[in-house]
Parts: sequence; structure tokens; C-alpha cells
Amino acid sequence: MRRALLATALAAGLIPAAHAVEGMWQPAQLPTIAAMLKQHGLKLDPATLTDLTAYPMGAIVSLGGCTASFVSPDGLVVTNHHCGYGALQYNSTKEKNLIEQGFLAKTFAEELPGSPDMRVFVTEEIRDVTRDVTAKLTPAMSGQQRYDAIDLAKKTLVKGCETDGYRCDVYTFHGGYSYQLIRQLEIKDVRLVYAPPESIGKFGGDVDNWMWPRHTGDFSYLRAYVSKDGKSATYSKDNVPYHPKHVIKLNPQGVEDGDYVMVVGYPGRTNRYRLAQEVSSAIDWQYPTQIKLYQEQLDTIAANGKANPDVTVKYASLVAGLNNYLKNFGGQLEGLRRADAVAVKQKQEADLDAWLKKQGGAENQALVADIAELKAKLAAYQATRERDVDLALVSRTQLFASGVRLARLADERTKPDMEREAGYQQRDEVRIEGALKQMERRYDAKTDQDLLANALVRYVGLPKDQRLPALDAWLAGASTRAAIQAKVSALYKGSKLGDTAERMKWFKADKKAIAASDDSMLKLANAVLPELKKIENEEDARDGELARLRPRYMQAIIAWKESQGLPVYPDANSSLRVTFGNVQGVAPRDGVSYAPFTTVEGIVEKNTGEEPFNAPKAEIEAIKAKAFDGYASKKLGTLPVDFLADLDITGGNSGSPSLDAQGRLVGLAFDGNWESVSGDWLFNPKLNRSIQVDVRYMLWVMHHLDHADNLLKEMGVPAK
Amino acid sequence: MRRALLATALAAGLIPAAHAVEGMWQPAQLPTIAAMLKQHGLKLDPATLTDLTAYPMGAIVSLGGCTASFVSPDGLVVTNHHCGYGALQYNSTKEKNLIEQGFLAKTFAEELPGSPDMRVFVTEEIRDVTRDVTAKLTPAMSGQQRYDAIDLAKKTLVKGCETDGYRCDVYTFHGGYSYQLIRQLEIKDVRLVYAPPESIGKFGGDVDNWMWPRHTGDFSYLRAYVSKDGKSATYSKDNVPYHPKHVIKLNPQGVEDGDYVMVVGYPGRTNRYRLAQEVSSAIDWQYPTQIKLYQEQLDTIAANGKANPDVTVKYASLVAGLNNYLKNFGGQLEGLRRADAVAVKQKQEADLDAWLKKQGGAENQALVADIAELKAKLAAYQATRERDVDLALVSRTQLFASGVRLARLADERTKPDMEREAGYQQRDEVRIEGALKQMERRYDAKTDQDLLANALVRYVGLPKDQRLPALDAWLAGASTRAAIQAKVSALYKGSKLGDTAERMKWFKADKKAIAASDDSMLKLANAVLPELKKIENEEDARDGELARLRPRYMQAIIAWKESQGLPVYPDANSSLRVTFGNVQGVAPRDGVSYAPFTTVEGIVEKNTGEEPFNAPKAEIEAIKAKAFDGYASKKLGTLPVDFLADLDITGGNSGSPSLDAQGRLVGLAFDGNWESVSGDWLFNPKLNRSIQVDVRYMLWVMHHLDHADNLLKEMGVPAK
Repeated sequence: MRRALLATALAAGLIPAAHAVEGMWQPAQLPTIAAMLKQHGLKLDPATLTDLTAYPMGAIVSLGGCTASFVSPDGLVVTNHHCGYGALQYNSTKEKNLIEQGFLAKTFAEELPGSPDMRVFVTEEIRDVTRDVTAKLTPAMSGQQRYDAIDLAKKTLVKGCETDGYRCDVYTFHGGYSYQLIRQLEIKDVRLVYAPPESIGKFGGDVDNWMWPRHTGDFSYLRAYVSKDGKSATYSKDNVPYHPKHVIKLNPQGVEDGDYVMVVGYPGRTNRYRLAQEVSSAIDWQYPTQIKLYQEQLDTIAANGKANPDVTVKYASLVAGLNNYLKNFGGQLEGLRRADAVAVKQKQEADLDAWLKKQGGAENQALVADIAELKAKLAAYQATRERDVDLALVSRTQLFASGVRLARLADERTKPDMEREAGYQQRDEVRIEGALKQMERRYDAKTDQDLLANALVRYVGLPKDQRLPALDAWLAGASTRAAIQAKVSALYKGSKLGDTAERMKWFKADKKAIAASDDSMLKLANAVLPELKKIENEEDARDGELARLRPRYMQAIIAWKESQGLPVYPDANSSLRVTFGNVQGVAPRDGVSYAPFTTVEGIVEKNTGEEPFNAPKAEIEAIKAKAFDGYASKKLGTLPVDFLADLDITGGNSGSPSLDAQGRLVGLAFDGNWESVSGDWLFNPKLNRSIQVDVRYMLWVMHHLDHADNLLKEMGVPAK
Repeated sequence: MRRALLATALAAGLIPAAHAVEGMWQPAQLPTIAAMLKQHGLKLDPATLTDLTAYPMGAIVSLGGCTASFVSPDGLVVTNHHCGYGALQYNSTKEKNLIEQGFLAKTFAEELPGSPDMRVFVTEEIRDVTRDVTAKLTPAMSGQQRYDAIDLAKKTLVKGCETDGYRCDVYTFHGGYSYQLIRQLEIKDVRLVYAPPESIGKFGGDVDNWMWPRHTGDFSYLRAYVSKDGKSATYSKDNVPYHPKHVIKLNPQGVEDGDYVMVVGYPGRTNRYRLAQEVSSAIDWQYPTQIKLYQEQLDTIAANGKANPDVTVKYASLVAGLNNYLKNFGGQLEGLRRADAVAVKQKQEADLDAWLKKQGGAENQALVADIAELKAKLAAYQATRERDVDLALVSRTQLFASGVRLARLADERTKPDMEREAGYQQRDEVRIEGALKQMERRYDAKTDQDLLANALVRYVGLPKDQRLPALDAWLAGASTRAAIQAKVSALYKGSKLGDTAERMKWFKADKKAIAASDDSMLKLANAVLPELKKIENEEDARDGELARLRPRYMQAIIAWKESQGLPVYPDANSSLRVTFGNVQGVAPRDGVSYAPFTTVEGIVEKNTGEEPFNAPKAEIEAIKAKAFDGYASKKLGTLPVDFLADLDITGGNSGSPSLDAQGRLVGLAFDGNWESVSGDWLFNPKLNRSIQVDVRYMLWVMHHLDHADNLLKEMGVPAK
């Protein structure tokens, strides 16, 4: 039925053939859009893409935040350079900086252990559990009741699924319209095999981040290891390479302009089905507020860094993150303005409303009412948005965060595991311990104090009824910056939580011990915890309400689109998705055209010799000599570096293989263009493009510059 | 002979047909390159372009730093918005900000007087005076003797030429290979007729400066007035519009991609024939040093502006200028690096050397020797480059500058006019008086002190033998910043030259009075003046030496190029030039293409509502409604705004008419693209583009938005 409708829509020209239909499709949806896939050039049977245990899906894995693929029967994994970065960092010393120099293991024995938190997740099962989660829900439930019922159902499903070496999670689709239980093999011994030097793998650095034209060789190789009996195990030199069921084949010829490509991976989060009022709040309040706050934080850190160079090192990663967000938010605002996003959303909502009313019937009438209720609820929630931002600022300062985390954990430990708050269950304790330890590498007491004082200066500007009595009691009327700074200063003087041994001591302590502590931060944490939990409960109640209303909105959207023959993909939620389209340039703005491919000549153009444009000398010379060893594109007459495709990806897709019409690897997705930054809210087929590193560049760098021919052989790439 | 050779070169494919041959041609050279002009599409007889009193050359005028053209028999002049900016500034008040609002005189009576220093220069005669200048030069002369001889010859020529209402100047070509005496009618009553609001005329502001794609409506209209008897006269309401001999016709249809265009105007300065070592010094020392110094000055002004907002206003123009230079220097460095400019120049020099040696003969041998001497001299001059920069920094601080200027003028006044230093002759006194007055609007004592202290901190780092004994005596051993600041502070306390009345009093004083003054700044000026003059004399001597050697280098270049059938144009020197080519987009870097035209849709894209992207509401609405009144391009399907052409322009060309194959105005040049910034050293036909505002956009803005139909009628543009 849906297929037939789609064919009609295609024939009627509703779907422009020149552009990919936007979408991060669930594998199970692919047969529904088979006609589109074929029209864009897919040669495989779409049905083969739905089987997670078959080729090629069986070879695509998650790194938790990134995507990767198996490329050899011995568990060799290819992903982005920035996804393998942690392993390079972990193995670098002052004397031997692997980030700078790159790394190549010529034998299995030379491979280096990745950082302890590195994981390869192999998705083995996706099961719809909508009934299990929603069976006991009734329309009469309060928000809190609904939240608790869903929470318990999810926890029960996870508990029933997780066995040794496997991780299970319940993923929410369409805001609660459906739920899936996903079971993944969790490989814990992940080793560093090969990475080009940073001057290739991160060429262009933050300057080129989100930009096209791009010339980054953003790829690296890892290897998954398991115990001798084939089970998940932490690092041991006795472990053996994992043998995946499927391995992605490479196509060393790559693709050309217009060719079919698809990206399979784990996109993190999108907001495509948010309402106009949510988009408007993001534009008018959320991004401008965050830009201001992040800038303030950067200023505070910079001022402290001037006085104490140690701060600059400790906060480098936070500063990079804040700058990254600032650039991102700027892009969001620019993109949403250019797209006139609020108006577009308003029109969509008006059209949907008109369609529902035109259809008539009790159910459609109920949907109209529920959508109106959703809008009213969302508007009401805005009343506390300033408070929520302020408390988040306070809670993110490190001494405060560690105090609250310790107090909370001790409290949760008094409950049966299933009743403990998600994030504070037994399965989470290793992660919490790690975070408490990690703090020592990123904490400067003076800077942390200044950040807390900034946050509190904002906080005391809140209306009285939105404030926390316990926090106010501790502030004891302090309202000027000087008075607040004095309180903060006393707080840090009276606490030893800045000390790692002390934190680890309290990590093991029970609730009674923590309640009796005279550490000033723990005392404050104990005092504010009930109030923070109260707010958390209010938020849970909201989530419970939204878990009823958003699915109603999505139900309306799905029915409406179906009536037009258009299938609906869910917002990204870190589950496995497929996006497809074609290699294609873009006209980003009036007067400007971008080619679909960049070429190595562009590396020479950009190269200044200074980071981040300091390509290796050998590379520059090879390019000038046109020593491309047969990897060049005949059509381009030179060696491509990166390419654009009109695919629909987002964060989490990093490292995803870009596959050709036969399902062979022709590149790795690693970024979107500047115009796609706002695509998380509103996809624009004219402007949104994914950026891939080209397989030909990868192979050339490996062969010609880094002599990684052992890996080419392992992957079955014919010798040049 | 030359023509024949050129045809050969063209036929042999030495000159790529797709690109304009670089060149800012003297009108008299045009018949020499007639074949090229025709090949690129010129329909006029090139010979007509050589006659300064004929169409179209007779209609092209200089504004002194900008170019303009007569577009009506009543002296209506069209130029860039940024060239007419002074008149807008001069007539703006807090209540009525013409810059912001724009201005339109509906009748002659409503026209507003421009600022007193505004001029329209009509070139009436260009005469080669090489013989007159060089007749008395002998190879045996010292540098100083040669300089003095040239100086006297020039002054004599100017004196013999200047009559009431006319300004004469001797222009140096090819560093002294030839000289021309240029006689211009100097129109002193220039009025403001029309300018669009800044949100059109300066749309994109500093952000878009030197950038493409561009959407700036950079045009405005002035009118030249003369006395009733047709003579040059300062402003009087009895003056009447000047009647030019020729008037540029407009082509309201404009041009399209690939069409022939030429720009006629007064380009200021280029360095195309500098040697590799000079380019290298610019890259390795000059630009980096200036970037550092300008940044330091900006920091000093910013710090003072924080304490005193008045400083921000007074130094706004200087700050804008410094930022403009900083951006420019960045572009120069990027462009010179990308072009590998030093290597290109070195190869040229090696090729020239080889050619000269291959030709043989005494003269060519002498040329080889002279070029070697030129290189040695240039290398030697570098020994004092740090000192020259430091003294320039000191001399540019305002109190110091006014003191030295007053002392110098009083000294020069004791000599016969012909012996006075150029710049200090009777004809220059009005300008000096103006500058001394002007200072009050741009001077803050505290900021000026800080800038002087910065300069002196650098100065005391110079080797002893490069320092000025009188300045050292005044410094009395002060070498730390604190000690220097104390000296500077005392200097400003003891001087009244910060006061305009005081400066004007001394402007009238004679040398004796100034020598007897106890004003601390005048005393310091009297003390250092002889030493500054000594350095000036050394520089004159260098100029004298270079006036012998650079022409020899140029003689070699010209002979070499002529042997290849290639004519040689001189470096820009503010004299009238013609550059020609075609409307053409550009591929500025790997993966990027720029279209030759921007369109009004790009204005909507860029418009944020905030300066400098705050297009008038009426314009945005008109664009969205496609209300183009017949001015749109059929080929583009919309209204163009600006366009690119592969012409060779530089500063001073601003406001130049861009003429089509029939010599009709199709736009106004107002900028170059970013890649052309370094084109002043090395023209790159692949990358250098001029940016013009399109005549269709000008006419549409005038008609549709500003209702300036009176001007359209006056210019004979058919009513829409």
C-alpha cells in the first residue's frame, strides 16, 4: 500500500528527483522506500539492508558516539581520525607524540591498547517493544505516573536482556510513539592499529570544522579483540582478534559526481519534528543565551589562564568544546534565519491542522485537541527556562557536581537496583567512578570558583519563587558579586573534594557517613539534593506528559504524510539508520558554487606550513610531482580528497561508511557543511550536504605516504 | 612593428584568449594593443581612446584618490558611494544623518555643498617631458645631485604650467624611464546630488570589504560647479553647473557573462616591477612588522577608548583605517604565498638575465651590470629599515607631527619658492593649514602620548649609530617604558600645540619666533629637525640613485618583452589608465566557483536586519515581490547587483566607469576580490577580478526605491 502510494508521489513529481528525500531511515523501513532507493541508483535489493546479521549491515558498528565498520575478517575497524583520537592521546607521551607523528602497527603485536573506555558495539538484535513499554499506560495517568511506568518498563526490559558481554537499551522513537530494545555485543578490548599524522588526519583543524571545501584525511584504523573463547573481555595480551560475521568491501575506484551513495551509522539526535514555538524559542532565547554564557565562561577561563598557565592545559578540552559550540550556534542561527524556519514550521502546522479538520472524525478531532494541549504545555514549560539554565550552570561546576553526585549515589544505593534512578544503577557505577577520578585532570579550584560565582550571580536574579530554599539559606542573603564570591571562597576552603583520594573515599561511603560529613561541599550537596530531586521530578512529570502528547502529534504527522504517499522517518536517537542520495556539489549562497570533490591541489593551496595547515612535506612533494600511484580519478584528472553528498547525517554518524550502489565502501562520513548545521531542525535538500573522506585519498595516503601496505593487503585491496 | 609582433604572439597562443592580458595601459599605448582590444570585443576604434578631449576619455575625471565620470551636460558626476562619503559626512547632523538616510536633491537648488576639500580634476593635457626632466642628468652625478636636478626640473615644469584654476603635476613612469606633465582643470565647487542610504551604498560594510560575492550598491552622484564665466571657483551660490565637453552614455541593458568591458580611471600605485628581494622583504619583514605595529596601535587606542569614550569617536577613522590595512596585509601575505611570488620573480629575473647575456653587446652588458648594482643598492638600503619604521611611528604621532610641521614650514619659508621642499611650497600652504586645523577632531592627548611612548620604546632598541643625537639628548638616557613615559608626559605638559588656536598662531609665525618659543614640543622639533632633514636627504640621495637604476631595469624589461611581441604598461602612478577584459567569474580555490554576477536574492540571504546587513525594508519587499520594473537581466532571470570582470585595477580606480564595447557605462568599479589584494605585486589572470556595481541595479535603486527619476531623465535614461 505504502509502496504504491510512493510510486504515485514519485510519478506526480512530488519528490524532486534531483534531491535525496531527507531521512535517517530505520533499516526495517527500507523496503517501504525501495522505489526511491532504486530511483537514486541503489543496485542491491533493499531487503538485504534490513537484515542486521547480513551484508552490509552486519559489518557496521557503533563506537558509542561514533560509527565504524569492520573491514577485515580479523576485526580490523575503520573509522574517523577524530573517533580514534582518544587512543592516540592515551598512547602519546611528551617524547613520542602519536597525534603529531601518526602511528602504524606493522604486526598485530605492535598494536597499542586503546583508552580503557573505548568500545566497539555490534548491534545483534533490534526488537520492537512498544507494547511492553506502553501496555500499562492509561490516558488518566499523571505525568509523574506515566514517567515512572515507562521508566520501570524500560529498566525491566534492559534487565531481562543484558547478559555478560552484552549491553541492552530501550530507544524511544517519535517521542514515545514506538520503542525498540536494542542488544549489542560490547567489545572492550579495542586497539590502535593505524592513524595518519594529525597534519593529514586533522588538516584544517578547527578553522575548517563544518566547512567546505575540506581537505581532511579524517580516517584511522582500530582492531576489536575478544577473549580466546570469543567473548567480550577487557584488555589482555592473551585476547585474540574478533571475527565479525561480515566485512565491508572497499571499492578502490570510488565514486564520481552524481553516483549513488548511502551512509549507514548511528546518528545521535535531531529535532525535525519540533514545533514552531520550540524553533522560535531556540532562535530568540536558547542560542543567544547560550552564546552569551559560553562566551562568559571562555572569558573567565582565559583570565585564569593568563594568571596560571596550568589552567590553559586543564581547560583546553572544555575551551575547544565551548568554541566548537559557539561556532555551531552561530551556524544554527544563520541557517534557521536563512530558512525562515519558524514560518516554515508554522505553515506545516497550519496545513496539518487543516488536513486533520478536513478529514473529520472523532480520532482526528482528538488529535487536534491533543496537539493544542501539547502547544499549551510547551508554552507553559518556558516559565522556568531561565531557572533551568542557571541551575545547569551551577550544577556543571566541578566541585559542586562531585558533591551532588556523591550524595546522590549514596542515596540511590539505599534502594533496590530497579528503583534506582537511571544513571545511578549498579551498571552505572564504573562510569561514575571514572568521572570522579577524571576530574583531577580538568579541575582548577580558582577557575571553578569563578565559574560557580558567575552562575550564582545569575541565579540570585531569578524570581524568589523559582529559587531553591536550601541554596538561598546557604547564600544567606549574598546578592552582590563580592558577597557571593566570599561565600564561594568559604565553600572551597571548607571542602576537600578537590582532592581525588578524598572523592574516591566518599565514593565508597554510605549515605549515613555522607550525611554526617563536615565537608562544606558535601553539606551543601546534602542540603540542596532534595530540592534538585524535586525539580528533577517536575521534569520527569513533564517528560511523562510529553510522552503522551508528542506521540499524538507524530501520529497525526504520520497519517498526514501517508496520505501523500510519504513515509516518515523518526528523529535520530543514536540507533542504526540508513541515509541515501547522490554525490553532489552545492550552491551555498548567491554567486557561489561548491564542487562535489576537493582535490589534493587544494592541500597545496591551503598549506601555510603552520598548524592546522601543515601538510607533511612528503605529501606536498608527492602532490606537486603528481605521484598518485593509480589512485587518481580519471574523471577529475587528479586525486580527490573529500566529497559531498546530499545525505542526511548528524553527530554520531562520524566514521560511518559511505557505501556505493553495490554496498562497497567509497568513503567515510565525517562532517556536514556549514549550511547543514541548522539541518538538525530543518533539513534543506538544496543546502544540506554530508562530507566524506574519499576512499582513494585514504588508500593513497596509506600506500604512498605511510606505507601501510600490510593493512591494504589485509583488506584485500589489490597492490599498486 | 610592435603591432606585428603582438599579432604573432597572439597567433602563437602566447597570450591566452580566455584571460585579459594584465595591464593598466596609458591611453597613448592603446593603438599598440589594438589587436588585443578587438580580440576581447572592443567595437570602438582604439584610436578614439587616445584622445583625452574626445569621447569617452573627455568625460572621465579624477576626484583625487577616486575616479568619476560626467553623465550629463550639466556637470552631473557619478562615482562610488564611498567616494562621495565625505560630502555625506560633511552635511550630516545628529538630527539628520544623511549617511544613514541617503540624500536626493530634486532640484539644483536642493543640492548641498561638498566638504571644502572636494575636487573634480578634469585632465586636459598629458605631455611627455622626459627630455625636460632628464636633459641635465649625467651618469657621474651623485644620488643627491641627481635627485635635486630632477626635483628642480619638475618644479620648473609645474610652475610654467599652472595657471589660475589649473593644477599641474609631473608624473614619473617606470621609476624614471619617462616623465609626463599632466594639466588638470581643478573644479572646487562640488555638490552632493544623490546617494542611496548606507544600507544600500555600504551594504556588507567592512565584513564584505574585498570580498566576493558582494551586494553593495556603491554609487552616488555629485555635480561640478564653476563661476558664471566658466572658471574654477570655490563654493558660491552664484556658481553655475559646469558643462563638460563629453558625457558618458549609460547602457541600461548592462552586460552579460563574457561581454567586453573596460575601466578607465586613475589607479594609485602598484609594485609590479619590483625585484624578488623587495617582494621577499615585504613578505618576511614589512607586512609582518606592520601587522604587529598596527595591532599594537589598535590595542593602545582600545585601552584608551575604554577609559574615555571620546577617544573611540575621535580615533574611529584611524581605527577603521588600521583594521582595513590589517585585513589587506593578511590578504597580501596569503596571496603572495599562494602565488609563490618570490620564486616567480626570481625566475623572471634569471630569464631576463639569460636573455640579456644571450643578446650580447655593450649596452646589454651595461644593463646586466646596472641591474646587479640596483640589487646591491636595494639590499644595502635594508640596513636602516627598522630605523625608518621607528621614526615614521614617532613622526606620525600628532603633537610631534604638528611641531615638526610648523618648524619645517617656518624654515622653508625663508627660501625662494622654487627652492622650497616639495610639499612645503606656497601652493601647499592651504593644505598644511587645513591639516593643522583638522587635528582637533582626531586628537586625544593621553592616547597620543601612549602612541609616542610605544614608538620611543621601539626606538631606544635601535643600534646607537642609527639613532638621532637630538632625540637621544631629549630622552636623556630614558630607556625603560616608565622612564620614557615620564619624558613624554613632561613633553605634553610643556606644550600648548594640542590647542588649535595655538597651532594656528604658530602657523603664521616666522622662523625666528619659532626658534625662540619655549613650547616644549616646538623646542624638541627645532632640535630634531636638522637630523630628520639629514635622513630625508639620505633618502633623496637613494631616490636619486634609484632614479638612475630602476629605469635601466625597466629598459631591459621593455626590450625583453618587446622581443616577445609584448608591450609593457607602467606601474600605476595615479595617472589616467585603461584596463580591459571581459565579464568573468572566478575559481578562487580548490572546489569553489564564483559566478560573475550577484543577484538581489543574495541581499535577502545576507540580510540580518543588523548593520552592515540591514537592507531597507522596502528593498527586501520589492525583491521578494520581484518588482524589478524591467531592469532585470533576461539571461539571469533576475536583477543583478554587482559583477566581476578580469580587469586590472587598484586603489584610485574606485568610482571608475566600467564601459562596454561601445564605450557606454554598464557599471562602476569599486573593489577587487580578495585574491586581487596581492595583485599589486603580481597580477594573476586566473584569480584577479575587479568588482563593479551593475548599472541595472543602480538604475533600479534610483527609480524604484529612491524615486530619483529627475536624474534618470537628466542622464537621458528612458523612463520605465
